Amino acid sequence: MSSYSAPVRDVAFILDHLHENSALTLPPFSELSPDLLEAVLEEAAKLAGDIWAPLNASGDREGCLRREDGRVALPDGFAEAYRAYAEGGWNGIGVSEALGGQGLPEVVASAVQEMLHGANMALGLCPMLTAGAIEALAHHGSEQQQVLYLPKLVEGHWTGTMNLTEPQAGSDLSKVRTRAVPEGDHFRLFGQKIFITWGEHDAAENIIHLVLARTPDAPDGNKGISLFLVPKYLVNEDGSLGQRNDVVCASIEHKMGIHGSPTCTLSFGEQDGAVGYLVGEPGRGLNHMFTMMNEARHKVGIQAIGVAERACQHAASYASERSQGRTPPARGGEPCMIDQHLDVRRMLLSMRTRTDALRALAMNCAAQLDVARHHEDADCRQAAQARVDVLIPVVKGFATDQAIDIASLGVQVHGGMGYIEETGAAQLLRDVRIAAIYEGTNGIQALDLAGRKLQRDGGAAFGSLVEEVRSVAEQLTAQPSLATLGKALNAGAEDLEACLARVLTEGTDAELGADAVQAYATPLLALAGHVLCAWQMGLSALKAQAALDAGADDDFLRGKLQEADFALRHWLPVGRAQRQVIEAGFEALLPSSGRY
Amino acid sequence: MSSYSAPVRDVAFILDHLHENSALTLPPFSELSPDLLEAVLEEAAKLAGDIWAPLNASGDREGCLRREDGRVALPDGFAEAYRAYAEGGWNGIGVSEALGGQGLPEVVASAVQEMLHGANMALGLCPMLTAGAIEALAHHGSEQQQVLYLPKLVEGHWTGTMNLTEPQAGSDLSKVRTRAVPEGDHFRLFGQKIFITWGEHDAAENIIHLVLARTPDAPDGNKGISLFLVPKYLVNEDGSLGQRNDVVCASIEHKMGIHGSPTCTLSFGEQDGAVGYLVGEPGRGLNHMFTMMNEARHKVGIQAIGVAERACQHAASYASERSQGRTPPARGGEPCMIDQHLDVRRMLLSMRTRTDALRALAMNCAAQLDVARHHEDADCRQAAQARVDVLIPVVKGFATDQAIDIASLGVQVHGGMGYIEETGAAQLLRDVRIAAIYEGTNGIQALDLAGRKLQRDGGAAFGSLVEEVRSVAEQLTAQPSLATLGKALNAGAEDLEACLARVLTEGTDAELGADAVQAYATPLLALAGHVLCAWQMGLSALKAQAALDAGADDDFLRGKLQEADFALRHWLPVGRAQRQVIEAGFEALLPSSGRY
Repeated sequence: MSSYSAPVRDVAFILDHLHENSALTLPPFSELSPDLLEAVLEEAAKLAGDIWAPLNASGDREGCLRREDGRVALPDGFAEAYRAYAEGGWNGIGVSEALGGQGLPEVVASAVQEMLHGANMALGLCPMLTAGAIEALAHHGSEQQQVLYLPKLVEGHWTGTMNLTEPQAGSDLSKVRTRAVPEGDHFRLFGQKIFITWGEHDAAENIIHLVLARTPDAPDGNKGISLFLVPKYLVNEDGSLGQRNDVVCASIEHKMGIHGSPTCTLSFGEQDGAVGYLVGEPGRGLNHMFTMMNEARHKVGIQAIGVAERACQHAASYASERSQGRTPPARGGEPCMIDQHLDVRRMLLSMRTRTDALRALAMNCAAQLDVARHHEDADCRQAAQARVDVLIPVVKGFATDQAIDIASLGVQVHGGMGYIEETGAAQLLRDVRIAAIYEGTNGIQALDLAGRKLQRDGGAAFGSLVEEVRSVAEQLTAQPSLATLGKALNAGAEDLEACLARVLTEGTDAELGADAVQAYATPLLALAGHVLCAWQMGLSALKAQAALDAGADDDFLRGKLQEADFALRHWLPVGRAQRQVIEAGFEALLPSSGRY
Repeated sequence: MSSYSAPVRDVAFILDHLHENSALTLPPFSELSPDLLEAVLEEAAKLAGDIWAPLNASGDREGCLRREDGRVALPDGFAEAYRAYAEGGWNGIGVSEALGGQGLPEVVASAVQEMLHGANMALGLCPMLTAGAIEALAHHGSEQQQVLYLPKLVEGHWTGTMNLTEPQAGSDLSKVRTRAVPEGDHFRLFGQKIFITWGEHDAAENIIHLVLARTPDAPDGNKGISLFLVPKYLVNEDGSLGQRNDVVCASIEHKMGIHGSPTCTLSFGEQDGAVGYLVGEPGRGLNHMFTMMNEARHKVGIQAIGVAERACQHAASYASERSQGRTPPARGGEPCMIDQHLDVRRMLLSMRTRTDALRALAMNCAAQLDVARHHEDADCRQAAQARVDVLIPVVKGFATDQAIDIASLGVQVHGGMGYIEETGAAQLLRDVRIAAIYEGTNGIQALDLAGRKLQRDGGAAFGSLVEEVRSVAEQLTAQPSLATLGKALNAGAEDLEACLARVLTEGTDAELGADAVQAYATPLLALAGHVLCAWQMGLSALKAQAALDAGADDDFLRGKLQEADFALRHWLPVGRAQRQVIEAGFEALLPSSGRY
């Protein structure tokens, strides 16, 4: 069985060095001392390592069981571990004080989320979905809805779900068919939703379902869809729980992984209709959902990084204890642990470098989110939001793709043992595989980036990001010991610029634009991910080198230089090849000729 | 549930065109008519599609159960499906007529194996291991052993296993501890072997275990290891079955995939010692094992290609029936199946191209095996064997890595449904994940290539292969419509040459050579895999273009051109990036500095 130790020092390094605390010095965080921050991270690490992590393997083995009455039995210990989390006040750490949370910066909340997902991804999904519900109600709920539902959700006494998908409506939500029929001050919902994460369970007193549905006579397509709040138990005006609502768990999916997370098919209105309340404006359901979707996508990236971190630890630990073969004659020729073989070291360093780079990128994005929310200057807020909008599809799409590969390498490091479930490496791969699919498949992320996000401002926000990459490349190039890295980063930035220009030009072509965006989207996201991660590793190298130059004697810092070297010279070239893929055009992909 | 349709036409295209039947016109195959060949492929396709494929999902669900008495219950229908295979005479198709087989060329036997693995990989493992046992006995068994054991193994009435791994001895077999104590004309074996594929079952009358063990007073290390034959039931001189031997299944592994294949821990000698017979020379056990290991590795590559083929079919079928979104305005703007979206088409074409390229490469290798065995000219035999030795680590390492990625893309094409086990896409990924690990991890394959195979002839065999790649590049460049592909292939060949030279030079350095080989091995294998697959796709394009130029009007042929374009312009660049990885050196990987 694998243990998990939250990467507190790595997080602190990023907080201290990469952002120079700019996000942490915003007005609402003025009282946030470094000591308090450290205490938060240390306490989160304890919750993750001591309470959540030990349930990861058993949760996978036991899975969730649907009883005959539609109730769901969670794996042993999950309800208690969730309650320990809620009672510790963790559910509200990133929620503003006005809504009853602790108002910590997103960059800190993200780091805590990563730890919890690394400890137990299946369990981490429960609060992740609740956060989405909080977000939706905070932005679009009526005052009455906010008063009635938010405090319990923020405290974690109730949990939330997002009900979008139906069998015929996945990536294309315009096909949603669930009906919402008006009845007095509320609606009655009828329909079936699938893939509802933590859709039914007894770990919390109530579940607040947010549901996309169609009112009678609403137009077809996206504009006919509204957002509804459907509580599992109706809530009386005084906040006490009333009747059980007409929504039941019809089945639980048998999935490749995250077995501890009950993925439910929910039936609304098998009796007289599930009571639901309109959230926000009628016909604006999809827009309202997407408010929270953007941040939920960031959280999926964070989640994948958590699992990648655990895979790194798990593989490094095994490799340091598994004796096979000998070191080369020049290094002693003695029997050794496999982490002395360079082919294994390549795998371990690749896993570690990519995980740390992705974390730095995701935390950079989180810091921008804080600026977008809290900066005093409106222009700064707007610029940060534009940056966030570009970064989120990269964080979601690239971090999840990479995390799957990292977890798969983790299996590989274990050799035959990696394929045996008891070892735990395979579970990490099975679990994290979903992250490239849910909250919008990675294909959808890439389309969001190459289409909407790039085209709406003619690439301005992305362009300013590439300028920052270039500036880091220049700083690296100016230092003799880092100049090679600087040149590599600069070459990556050039590739990215060239491809952005091409995608912008061809993507806005009246005839072929839509196909061009589709064809280039995934290669562009991959290229952007590699270059932006290299950027973060370049920053990391600058900061580590500065500290070493100032006299620090620290393997941790030398490790950051090692990672930067690997990222820029061994990893980035693979990403840069995507430029050639994009420059190959897309004729081969068109359905016009041939067999496919 | 997914159906499976064996790729008969693709196989025939490769047989007809790529090898110009050179392997099929060798002396032993003079009576092999095209009609007979086609009949073999068609019949194999029926067995695979009608009998084996329908048990794939149920085998995964049911898995194998170890009973209290150590007997193993297979999934429902597996024993019958295996017997249908044996009774159809399929087990001996690639075995020479002298040994009781049908003596078909390896290139045909490989194609049949691919079909069977595509249909049901877990079941396919049973005859795959038997083939290894046949190979070992045919090469190293005494005449008496051959007479007593081979006919039953060739007919498939008995199955075989390979017993190498022990808990402390995986990639490093010098650590084997199982003891073999002499007693009259036989030995008594004591010890425990793990990860024994199809180690115990009732689908056949007997199981012939081939076991690595150490005789008393044998030296430490590799040279103390001998090979033993340990039958589950002792075999009387007349061939009838005698007593149950002292070897039992102690447990069955709970694995990530191939649940239908019983992976056993075998205990030898819990009572008075398992009766075993020395095979070949004492102290030469590892060498004897490696005789069959080389071909077993080829078969693992073939197996992975089979699963990749099924993943292609499964994903293409889903994408052609799943309606989401609309075509771009320029292509009608109508609601459409997802296989009309270019991002999905990119995934499907990538899966299809890589699968077909890998098949062509593996069949090229199989054809060389036939030449190595049967050519009348000894020099030709030797040259072919040298080619095979270089190709096998690429086929095993590259095909399995790619197949995992192909199966993972298959999951992705299905969106959320891909993560649900009932869909079947996830099983393909879980199943094929082992192929990168067993029969020597892919790291071991890469070391075999970059170390022994490259250095023993100073790169001569690999060099002659690259010359062939260049010659195809020239042929492509000479044709205006294919010139771009020719240039791309030529550039790939140059990268490969440059990297081979570097690995040869640095790899033979007295001081750093061993580390250099370790560091460059995996990138070199990846580069070689990409370039050699591109070569095969180049050949395929030449043949398809020639047929089209000759007047054929055939989407199948146009599809081959489409694939070649994708392979050379969209896929090869990613592989070519490995040159930069190799040229980055390996300082970052050395354990001398930093944290890692």
